[in-house]
Amino acid sequence: MVGGALTGDPEQLVTGLAGIREAMPGDVSFVANPKYQTAVKTTRASVLIIDKDMDVAFGGTLIRVENPSEAFVKLASQVAPHPVSYKPGAHPTAIIGPTARLGKDVSVQPHAVIEDGAVIGDRTVIGAGSYIGHESRLGADCLLYARVSLRERTMVGDRVILHCGVVLGADGFGFETVGGKHQKIPQVGHVEIGDDVEIGANTTIDRGRFGRTRVGQGTKIDNLVQIGHNCVIGDHCIICALVGIAGSSIIGNQVTIAGQVGVAGHLTVGDRSIIMAQAGVTKDVPAGGMVLGAPAVPHKEFKRVNAAVQRLPETLAKVHELEQQLAELRARLTTAS
Amino acid sequence: MVGGALTGDPEQLVTGLAGIREAMPGDVSFVANPKYQTAVKTTRASVLIIDKDMDVAFGGTLIRVENPSEAFVKLASQVAPHPVSYKPGAHPTAIIGPTARLGKDVSVQPHAVIEDGAVIGDRTVIGAGSYIGHESRLGADCLLYARVSLRERTMVGDRVILHCGVVLGADGFGFETVGGKHQKIPQVGHVEIGDDVEIGANTTIDRGRFGRTRVGQGTKIDNLVQIGHNCVIGDHCIICALVGIAGSSIIGNQVTIAGQVGVAGHLTVGDRSIIMAQAGVTKDVPAGGMVLGAPAVPHKEFKRVNAAVQRLPETLAKVHELEQQLAELRARLTTAS
Amino acid sequence: MVGGALTGDPEQLVTGLAGIREAMPGDVSFVANPKYQTAVKTTRASVLIIDKDMDVAFGGTLIRVENPSEAFVKLASQVAPHPVSYKPGAHPTAIIGPTARLGKDVSVQPHAVIEDGAVIGDRTVIGAGSYIGHESRLGADCLLYARVSLRERTMVGDRVILHCGVVLGADGFGFETVGGKHQKIPQVGHVEIGDDVEIGANTTIDRGRFGRTRVGQGTKIDNLVQIGHNCVIGDHCIICALVGIAGSSIIGNQVTIAGQVGVAGHLTVGDRSIIMAQAGVTKDVPAGGMVLGAPAVPHKEFKRVNAAVQRLPETLAKVHELEQQLAELRARLTTAS
Repeated sequence: MVGGALTGDPEQLVTGLAGIREAMPGDVSFVANPKYQTAVKTTRASVLIIDKDMDVAFGGTLIRVENPSEAFVKLASQVAPHPVSYKPGAHPTAIIGPTARLGKDVSVQPHAVIEDGAVIGDRTVIGAGSYIGHESRLGADCLLYARVSLRERTMVGDRVILHCGVVLGADGFGFETVGGKHQKIPQVGHVEIGDDVEIGANTTIDRGRFGRTRVGQGTKIDNLVQIGHNCVIGDHCIICALVGIAGSSIIGNQVTIAGQVGVAGHLTVGDRSIIMAQAGVTKDVPAGGMVLGAPAVPHKEFKRVNAAVQRLPETLAKVHELEQQLAELRARLTTAS
Repeated sequence: MVGGALTGDPEQLVTGLAGIREAMPGDVSFVANPKYQTAVKTTRASVLIIDKDMDVAFGGTLIRVENPSEAFVKLASQVAPHPVSYKPGAHPTAIIGPTARLGKDVSVQPHAVIEDGAVIGDRTVIGAGSYIGHESRLGADCLLYARVSLRERTMVGDRVILHCGVVLGADGFGFETVGGKHQKIPQVGHVEIGDDVEIGANTTIDRGRFGRTRVGQGTKIDNLVQIGHNCVIGDHCIICALVGIAGSSIIGNQVTIAGQVGVAGHLTVGDRSIIMAQAGVTKDVPAGGMVLGAPAVPHKEFKRVNAAVQRLPETLAKVHELEQQLAELRARLTTAS
Repeated sequence: MVGGALTGDPEQLVTGLAGIREAMPGDVSFVANPKYQTAVKTTRASVLIIDKDMDVAFGGTLIRVENPSEAFVKLASQVAPHPVSYKPGAHPTAIIGPTARLGKDVSVQPHAVIEDGAVIGDRTVIGAGSYIGHESRLGADCLLYARVSLRERTMVGDRVILHCGVVLGADGFGFETVGGKHQKIPQVGHVEIGDDVEIGANTTIDRGRFGRTRVGQGTKIDNLVQIGHNCVIGDHCIICALVGIAGSSIIGNQVTIAGQVGVAGHLTVGDRSIIMAQAGVTKDVPAGGMVLGAPAVPHKEFKRVNAAVQRLPETLAKVHELEQQLAELRARLTTAS
């Protein structure tokens, strides 16, 4: 399949594919990056695809090729199980409101619910047990996996992928506190998702208080992310798992937000900026900025300060020594004078 | 509608409402706080409601009023879409155990499941695909959105709102480790939710090992929060997104816990205290306390220490300089004597 | 029931069991650990089980026994409500693909969906509204609560417990960025869960890009955890709530990961290591290691550095004083010479 030169057992049975570090016996793996060469000694893989000129000590079967990475991807796509497809049409157990409008070749899986006034674009798949609220609109070629919930009036573009358990349009977290009691502020806005967005499993995006909470086209959001009411997320952003963005913050285009970051409310994060993992963003980030830490500061500053912090115990010792030397000097000076 | 004086195009078509920073063309927005006055220059809103005496340079349509904030809220509530309502009665696809008892005008939406022995109060709505476990009790006027799961014997008060994907009463995370293996400790308690509580999308609250995990009346919990077994959360608290509270911790009344905070197990957090975002609480917090950082310390201490930390690189330079000066002095003193 | 000696009102009505700190009036509680003895003064419990020799000032009813902890557990198990059981057989509203294979005494609850090619082991329970994707395999004696989602080809061992809202096998978060736009990398692998694993409510585990994402036998995972594509989690680990583990990281056996920890991608965490709460792991952790902080460092180092950090303001004052003393000394020396 990959056209390489085999050394070792040509009858080796292969049962799976895996990266070299996570491979198990029976797996075929590969080494493209020389830095993984040491992993060859400890890998449990049975077959390795390697560079034709690479020198490795490996007890299993080797396949030497021009480009191991390419060969592995080729192999993987050839042996990959055929993707699951969902037949057009509504399953008899789906509940579809009489005024809902479904496009051509829409697939509505078992136990899905589509409320009145909803509009579903052509070829979109509504996964098993998903809920599409009143007057929500989905574009064409969307793929909603099982158990997705869209509250009323959620607007979704074309080619959007929503993974299992996604919740779009729950009420924003807004209260007015009167005499120590929290009164609910009505959340009458909605959620708008641009074209080509992908949203990970169990992620939640709240509806606007007024107006919209918006995710721009091409933005990809990982699992278990929380986006608050009235946030505006730009185009082509990457937002990793367990990130929380508080209400009314504005994230520019092509922004990267790493895992477990928190962004406070009412902030602006500029285009192409990078927020590193676990950062706590408490003020605006300029375009192209790169921040880290809690509270977040520019990346270089964090590195400089953190290096100083890690050396702090020895600095304290040094200050203590200086005190002693100074006391000694002072004593000598007093004696001398 | 808002009774103001209009400048600009009276025929301007308005398609939405939004805050000044997140507004798009076609939106009407407002400026109440003078600090947002600079945002007027960059807003994409087409219409602005402003204070009658405010001086702004804005190319779009202006409406000058006495109280812009009030006018905007009035406008918003007038144009807000009518809220979705759920008709009383059980949808034919709902599965309701023969010994479950439903109050007056209860609404059970499609594909909901209500197990035996459950009791549902008057006018409560059970959302599509929600699951009410055996012997659970919900009060009157509750609103459960789609895909809420209540495990057996969960007790919920009146006027409680549970957003999509909420899970109440999953087993507490308790194991006994014997010989390196973790044996499950039975979790035979339950969850109790007071009146007027609101719980956000995909939030999880575990049942007690024995007895109860409790959330007091009027407490509001945001999305993706985890509350461990046997926690007792007081009345009228605010708990923001992605907070985790470990088992058996006790949170007082009117406590505010900001986003991504972690509270270790078996702690007590006093009434009216404030835990700031991303704090890691590892010891008790006194009533009225305000803590920050990981491990969390009083807010003032954190500010003082963090200011010192940020100046640390220059402090190191200063210590280095002191060393040199001291060496020099010592040399002079040695020469002098 | 517990065979102790009662002091106080023998007719005291008991309505529940609880720990001493979270007890409410009507509860019976216990004091096993002398450190909780002070809690006796403030507890709201009506009945306390205590050591027969313990001296306490308590206004309610006391029961003195040899071993209070054992007596309480005995009492708790005697009064615990009988566990919910699920009858074998498929509910008429369950949708089961014609080529799915169900073992002996499998229970399929209302509105569950089991797709074609799935295989369910003997006595396994598929909870209400759960979704079992194409060609997924579950072992024997598994318990899936309501609204669990397993995407296609997920492999689950025997005696596995999946709590409400768990999502296994959603696509890994993998994109190739070309000209600032993120192209989806197909995620054609799957998820494999070993025997005796327990996974908490709304936790998500992504499928591999190629090959598998794996959780080893006996590992227990809490609520709202995210495990990325191609991670390999070892046997008998404990992973607490809100943890995120990025793609392709390898966690050894018997590892403990506390709440809200983040582990970056492509790392190796050694056997029996402990990662403390909220740590941000950015490099490999050796076997038996114990790390803390963000970026995470060995526990002792963190304690040492953090102690120094907390004393930093006074250290700065000391440095300032040294500067003044030095200046003064220098002046004296200049005068003297």
